[in-house]
Amino acid sequence: MWLIEGTPALFTDLYELTMAQVYYRKGMAGSAYFEVTVRHLPQNWGFFVMAGLPELWSYLDRFRFSDDDIAYLRSTELFEPDFLVNLRDFRPDVTVRALPEGTVFFPGEPILEVGGPILATQLLESYVLNILGFSIIEASLATRMVLAAGGVPLLEFGMRRAQGPVASIRAARAAQMAGWKATSNVFAARCLGMPPSGTMAHSFIQAHTSQEQAFREFAAIYRDKAILLVDTYDTIEGVKTAARVACEFLERGVRLRGIRLDSGHLVADSRFARDHFRQQGLDFLRIFASGDLDEFKIHDLLAAGGQFDGFGVGTHFAVSRHAPSISIVYKLAQYDDRPSHKTSPDKATLPGRKTLLRTGSSQFAKDTVCPLDPSAHDLLRPLQSVEPIETVQERVRRQIVALPESVKAIRKPASYPVEFVGFPGA
Amino acid sequence: MWLIEGTPALFTDLYELTMAQVYYRKGMAGSAYFEVTVRHLPQNWGFFVMAGLPELWSYLDRFRFSDDDIAYLRSTELFEPDFLVNLRDFRPDVTVRALPEGTVFFPGEPILEVGGPILATQLLESYVLNILGFSIIEASLATRMVLAAGGVPLLEFGMRRAQGPVASIRAARAAQMAGWKATSNVFAARCLGMPPSGTMAHSFIQAHTSQEQAFREFAAIYRDKAILLVDTYDTIEGVKTAARVACEFLERGVRLRGIRLDSGHLVADSRFARDHFRQQGLDFLRIFASGDLDEFKIHDLLAAGGQFDGFGVGTHFAVSRHAPSISIVYKLAQYDDRPSHKTSPDKATLPGRKTLLRTGSSQFAKDTVCPLDPSAHDLLRPLQSVEPIETVQERVRRQIVALPESVKAIRKPASYPVEFVGFPGA
Repeated sequence: MWLIEGTPALFTDLYELTMAQVYYRKGMAGSAYFEVTVRHLPQNWGFFVMAGLPELWSYLDRFRFSDDDIAYLRSTELFEPDFLVNLRDFRPDVTVRALPEGTVFFPGEPILEVGGPILATQLLESYVLNILGFSIIEASLATRMVLAAGGVPLLEFGMRRAQGPVASIRAARAAQMAGWKATSNVFAARCLGMPPSGTMAHSFIQAHTSQEQAFREFAAIYRDKAILLVDTYDTIEGVKTAARVACEFLERGVRLRGIRLDSGHLVADSRFARDHFRQQGLDFLRIFASGDLDEFKIHDLLAAGGQFDGFGVGTHFAVSRHAPSISIVYKLAQYDDRPSHKTSPDKATLPGRKTLLRTGSSQFAKDTVCPLDPSAHDLLRPLQSVEPIETVQERVRRQIVALPESVKAIRKPASYPVEFVGFPGA
Repeated sequence: MWLIEGTPALFTDLYELTMAQVYYRKGMAGSAYFEVTVRHLPQNWGFFVMAGLPELWSYLDRFRFSDDDIAYLRSTELFEPDFLVNLRDFRPDVTVRALPEGTVFFPGEPILEVGGPILATQLLESYVLNILGFSIIEASLATRMVLAAGGVPLLEFGMRRAQGPVASIRAARAAQMAGWKATSNVFAARCLGMPPSGTMAHSFIQAHTSQEQAFREFAAIYRDKAILLVDTYDTIEGVKTAARVACEFLERGVRLRGIRLDSGHLVADSRFARDHFRQQGLDFLRIFASGDLDEFKIHDLLAAGGQFDGFGVGTHFAVSRHAPSISIVYKLAQYDDRPSHKTSPDKATLPGRKTLLRTGSSQFAKDTVCPLDPSAHDLLRPLQSVEPIETVQERVRRQIVALPESVKAIRKPASYPVEFVGFPGA
């Protein structure tokens, strides 16, 4: 869906291919089950939110090696001709079990399982982690920001600072999952069916001979959609100028949409703007804030009595500045009916395929990870299609309601209890 | 070159397009000059390294709106038909001046200038920042890691944790610029003409009935390229097993390449491995380390006497974990022959087009930013083609030699002096 031009199969680490050749040459055709888990929560995070499945679906669907890919692999002199012929016809014949998107989860829990011939399941490792890792980071962070904003709408403004274009779409989709209202990223808006949104840049004001003229030109075209950026020079003067222009348009029956504060003392300036707009009969003007916002600042701006009708969140969200990576891993749980695990210090894993159970309904009480039990009400479900975004949004909403308040805190959340039961030595 | 499928023009923030429509409707056709700068250095960084120009070149070359793009924009009900017709034929008719890739630079300095009709120069803002921002982060960080590794080769292993596929290629190219030896990312290796590299995963060991058998199977196929991963169970046992297998192959005239340590006590384990290999007549075996390495750990591992012949660096590099974003901005410096700047608190800019001068040759002594001076030896040069990677690599090497030691320190570097001369009020 949002892939780089060409086939995606070379988006992998070389070792996946060199290991695959050994499996092929040695005829190791047994079934393998790989399990994806995240080892630790970032500081101040109480939960993760599952995401990335539509992109995974598209990746599996399009996975193949082109003739050019094969020619490149031949040129590395690492691969035998018969293996390359086999790769040319290769399709990832795997089954996937996964937590549905929008499900909250915790460290150590199985969140996705890929089963099938070891050659196929191994080859998918690198890009499955690439897709899921950042999608989960962004869905979790988008949800944290919703919790911090306490009902004030959020707008996704991070494209320019995202680490890449696909990263920016992953971020926008995560925002959409968590119920953000819009994105400034036009490409993402089109891909996702999300409303595009934006105001104006400082350069727009600077390109006019006066701020007032700039506001007037913009308002004349965008009318009830016009949001005026007021901090290019002096913010208080900017607010007053915006109010004058809004009054002019109101006389002609046009209600401008509002203003944006992008720097300075956001709490004081927003309160000044709210009071000033009331005095001028402009109560309808909305006040948007932006400028290096994260979930902590959003929480604190509101707690300090700031007057905001929306937050535009850019850099901190787009790269997950406080937690730009997570310890997501893809580990072999079972091969050829033999449970498998590693015992490296600090990186040990539990053997065998697994089931994830959650106790509690209106409020989640406890999770239990146990050996695979087909008769149990397992949170991992076969991945058989892509869900509509509305289904995922509704799931996020319900899950967040059911998550204990103490686990939802954006600072120093409580640990949610997860038990590992029925494993040798656990 | 590494773009998403389809045309890149919609990879922008909505406001670039809404502002463009005002410029179009009002006939604002004056020339604009936008300037890219980075406001601040991340903590512990002493310098930036310029990067991203080939991707920028490709973006400008391919920039156009497809019929589908235009149809989408029409559906937003924000744009008039005549403006959309104009966009359909739009090409970014701009001139670019830039620091050559690999040039070191400092906060506040002009690093790229885009000149042309304001409609065109404004439209490019968002994606120019997206390209340059992460490319500069990665080139700077790759260079810091080279400084930390003091001659020990570096391998780029970060694809699985990168925030997106294009981000992973930007990272690999930055590593290539700074002289890293190889990347595990097969797609990036092919795009960049960089050697692909890799070892084996823990799952490979686990899929065999014994570690020794796994090593033997792998060594039989990859011989002098085989690197054995020794920490799946007990690292010391792993080292001894690797040595046994290496001895067997040596008897048959095959020298395996080495081992990889991915967890545990890297200094102690590497010293044990070096001693053990010497005792066994296996001095040729190289010792590679990986596992959550950053420039600080690399420096400290070497300072503590670790025995390493290469470092595989993944997550910390791929997302620039300590500095996942930088304060890169694209600001209007001049419009229609009128110098322009903003005066927002903490975000003020200096007016007018600029020249960047550097004093000192064998050792850089001081930079000076002054109003545009066509007769000066300006570090900003017209962007007219893409340089060969070897030219860029050589520039990085020379620049790093000329940079004062105190500015190159990876912890608490000194500030490099930059003067702003000839601006009103500066």
